[in-house]
Amino acid sequence: MFLRNTWYVACTPDEIADKPLGRRICNERMVFFRGPDGAVAALEDFCPHRGAPLSLGFVRDGQLVCGYHGLVMGAEGKCASMPGQRVGGFPSIRRFPAVERYGFIWVWPGDPALADPATIHHLEWADSPEWAHGGGLYHIHCDYRLMIDNLMDLTHETYVHASSIGQAEIEEAAPQTKVEGDSVVTSRFMENIMPPPFWAAALRGNGLADNVPCDRWQICRFTPPSHVMIEVGVAHAGRGGYHADAQHKASSIVVDFITPETDTSIWYFWGMARNFKPRDAQLTETIREGQGKIFGEDLEMLEAQQRNVLANPTRNLLKLNIDAGGVQSRRVLDRLIAEERQAAQAVQAVS
Amino acid sequence: MFLRNTWYVACTPDEIADKPLGRRICNERMVFFRGPDGAVAALEDFCPHRGAPLSLGFVRDGQLVCGYHGLVMGAEGKCASMPGQRVGGFPSIRRFPAVERYGFIWVWPGDPALADPATIHHLEWADSPEWAHGGGLYHIHCDYRLMIDNLMDLTHETYVHASSIGQAEIEEAAPQTKVEGDSVVTSRFMENIMPPPFWAAALRGNGLADNVPCDRWQICRFTPPSHVMIEVGVAHAGRGGYHADAQHKASSIVVDFITPETDTSIWYFWGMARNFKPRDAQLTETIREGQGKIFGEDLEMLEAQQRNVLANPTRNLLKLNIDAGGVQSRRVLDRLIAEERQAAQAVQAVS
Amino acid sequence: MFLRNTWYVACTPDEIADKPLGRRICNERMVFFRGPDGAVAALEDFCPHRGAPLSLGFVRDGQLVCGYHGLVMGAEGKCASMPGQRVGGFPSIRRFPAVERYGFIWVWPGDPALADPATIHHLEWADSPEWAHGGGLYHIHCDYRLMIDNLMDLTHETYVHASSIGQAEIEEAAPQTKVEGDSVVTSRFMENIMPPPFWAAALRGNGLADNVPCDRWQICRFTPPSHVMIEVGVAHAGRGGYHADAQHKASSIVVDFITPETDTSIWYFWGMARNFKPRDAQLTETIREGQGKIFGEDLEMLEAQQRNVLANPTRNLLKLNIDAGGVQSRRVLDRLIAEERQAAQAVQAVS
Repeated sequence: MFLRNTWYVACTPDEIADKPLGRRICNERMVFFRGPDGAVAALEDFCPHRGAPLSLGFVRDGQLVCGYHGLVMGAEGKCASMPGQRVGGFPSIRRFPAVERYGFIWVWPGDPALADPATIHHLEWADSPEWAHGGGLYHIHCDYRLMIDNLMDLTHETYVHASSIGQAEIEEAAPQTKVEGDSVVTSRFMENIMPPPFWAAALRGNGLADNVPCDRWQICRFTPPSHVMIEVGVAHAGRGGYHADAQHKASSIVVDFITPETDTSIWYFWGMARNFKPRDAQLTETIREGQGKIFGEDLEMLEAQQRNVLANPTRNLLKLNIDAGGVQSRRVLDRLIAEERQAAQAVQAVS
Repeated sequence: MFLRNTWYVACTPDEIADKPLGRRICNERMVFFRGPDGAVAALEDFCPHRGAPLSLGFVRDGQLVCGYHGLVMGAEGKCASMPGQRVGGFPSIRRFPAVERYGFIWVWPGDPALADPATIHHLEWADSPEWAHGGGLYHIHCDYRLMIDNLMDLTHETYVHASSIGQAEIEEAAPQTKVEGDSVVTSRFMENIMPPPFWAAALRGNGLADNVPCDRWQICRFTPPSHVMIEVGVAHAGRGGYHADAQHKASSIVVDFITPETDTSIWYFWGMARNFKPRDAQLTETIREGQGKIFGEDLEMLEAQQRNVLANPTRNLLKLNIDAGGVQSRRVLDRLIAEERQAAQAVQAVS
Repeated sequence: MFLRNTWYVACTPDEIADKPLGRRICNERMVFFRGPDGAVAALEDFCPHRGAPLSLGFVRDGQLVCGYHGLVMGAEGKCASMPGQRVGGFPSIRRFPAVERYGFIWVWPGDPALADPATIHHLEWADSPEWAHGGGLYHIHCDYRLMIDNLMDLTHETYVHASSIGQAEIEEAAPQTKVEGDSVVTSRFMENIMPPPFWAAALRGNGLADNVPCDRWQICRFTPPSHVMIEVGVAHAGRGGYHADAQHKASSIVVDFITPETDTSIWYFWGMARNFKPRDAQLTETIREGQGKIFGEDLEMLEAQQRNVLANPTRNLLKLNIDAGGVQSRRVLDRLIAEERQAAQAVQAVS
């Protein structure tokens, strides 16, 4: 169901600031903490002594001390010491490659030998002082692919987010979907429409007229394993739309990292990146609160959809043009998962 | 476990006044709403587009609009339209025959071709200005047949409802049970007893002496699939009991519609109908509150009984004379369910 | 998983003072109450009439009256009467031998023919005016053997109870474990250490200096089926340690009765017995509160350990010297459980 030889967002640095963090990812129970050099470490959340979760312990000098009987686990998954014990023969526990980058902790649930941090896509908005980013984390009981579907078809904004970013013109503008290697891009352009409340407020915030016709765009880009970046914005009509100058538009990147917890639950890291007023922390917080409310509206729907789909396992769903983004993203995933499985079997056949 | 070609009470009109209602009945997830002519409609609670529950959407012009991406579902289960889509080839969803009658919405979970609203028993108390009715709805985790047992053996009043309608004389009066076609009637008559608190209050409310010996009766009538109407009352002793004139008695009909949700849970529509002071809305509310408290006392017992029975699956229970009402009701149900199954198999064999 | 032909602590007398108590023990649903002579009785919590839990009823004249329809169950599990019924042919329900002793109600889940109250170990602290005892009950979701492990290796105090009874010197002193028949004793002696907060307070409470070096001891004794008594204390250094006179030490017995509820949950009766100031009820309460907080710290760890162990069923845990107490206790249990099974099979083969 999941790609394993890939990088997922596991947590944010503040989640491991004071103590280790236990989190299940792709059905693996992991513990995250900072090792001796401050670098992030991820291990199996299982003390080899009596099976207690190491995440209930504490970090001392970059090592994880089990909170039950004090076994000291090194950042590589090898027991470093234990009071009164010789630990040379203690079994190691699994280590998961983990790196900190772009303001997130990333983890590789698959074969450590294949993990290369260079394959994490460059995120310009996270790496530049010209950009600001704010966001949050939701735990949702749904298959991670239902969230990909959700984000690759923004038609739902008209219904789920009717009071903020939804408007009838979205569903009247047919989306275009194209596959670019392992990426899938679904774009929607609306011309000469009135901005919905969220965008009217954004225009106002930028000092622009908010009650004039605009062009609006949504460019959703899926990349494996389960990341969706969405370029969104409005520009005063006739100013070039997506290509308008900064003084005629308000735009952002909606950031979505979807990390499977189990087959039917996810850790959903949502956020918004913008390249205007990047040092305005109050604005970052205002946007974060507004986005948190809007994205919270999806939870009930996705969890109810998940229950309904589980209760009707043999039923085929429709695949309309508006679903093309999700359908193509699942095809990319199916292909990559099959390739990963074949490669693993080839390795087993050789050995 | 359930009869399917039959009418169950699904909900009350107020439950679909503002928005569609999702409710599971006989293990089917259904959505109830008012169609174009105001008539009630019941459909499978499953949008054929992406599987979202239609009950999370809204009603517009008698059609159900999916709250996820706006598919518009007609009251017959055929997709009427969807923004930007041609819907001619969309699969239909199941429609369940539904009618509004006697102040309730009724649904037929089985074969629509067999559904005939004329087979809903006439309920005089619901159809006449001489009567008033008040009631409520409880969700209980028990097999619907445990509730039938409960209502067809009112011996339990002495124990479960000791402070309101229970009294030792109930269990001292042996009940009589007779089967009349598909109906089962269990009657109990007590003579020359003091009225218990609930009935003493009812006598007082009717302007009658409440501290004098009375005759008391309970006539429980089961009709398939799972309805139990109970004629209950007291009359001053020596005035003819059940047949006494109105000025010497207080009487009512206890109304019980038991609708299976799953194998081990029910929607229990309880109420009381009376033919005295029918326009006294305050009295209706007072009775409703009192009955709600009394009937709430059964919940804990029935759910605990259900857990105990599930934990002891091979154990036979006793079938005493007081259980005859429940036992005979189950026999009627077993026979009708077997007939329904045979008829379905015969249809399959022909086709 | 459990010994059955043995005595477990089922409840305390106050739990059956006002009404019968339903409690599952060793996967058996039992009801406890006081019979006609005030002696405690334990029966299957199942009314043979309709399967209701008898524990929802009430006690009348030493008999249990079912709260549903009034069946009267005698203390031996034989139906005594039922209003309007002849009960001679009613099936009996299971009786479990039960006795009251040492301030607890004890139950024997196995073969009643083998039950002998004389086999309950003598508990001097419960039987003498020189001693006082206070304690409480926790419901914990873990295998009862995880709690035995916990109590037979007090190394965990350093980590789980760091702020009260833990100190680094515990883990520096290697424990000694010896098996004495069916008992297992693990002892740990620490010399010339500073008393941790709990013991410093106890010394102060005894009017002794609390900021001077002490000797400290912990002598854990496991006896089947799942009882652990721990002699604990401190004495001013150089006064003979464990053997010091009363005026130079503070000591107690930690009392632990672990009663399996299901395979993965327990009723944990914890307490402390002391032979100083035995009539000081305020002191008993102060100790009880302090112990309750400390023992509550184990809950989260044990339940998390249980979940982790269940999620990793094939994994072997380490068995270090500090685990010897738990390991040896499990060996005793495994041997006794095997003997119990063989004896039962021998009986079956004969009959």
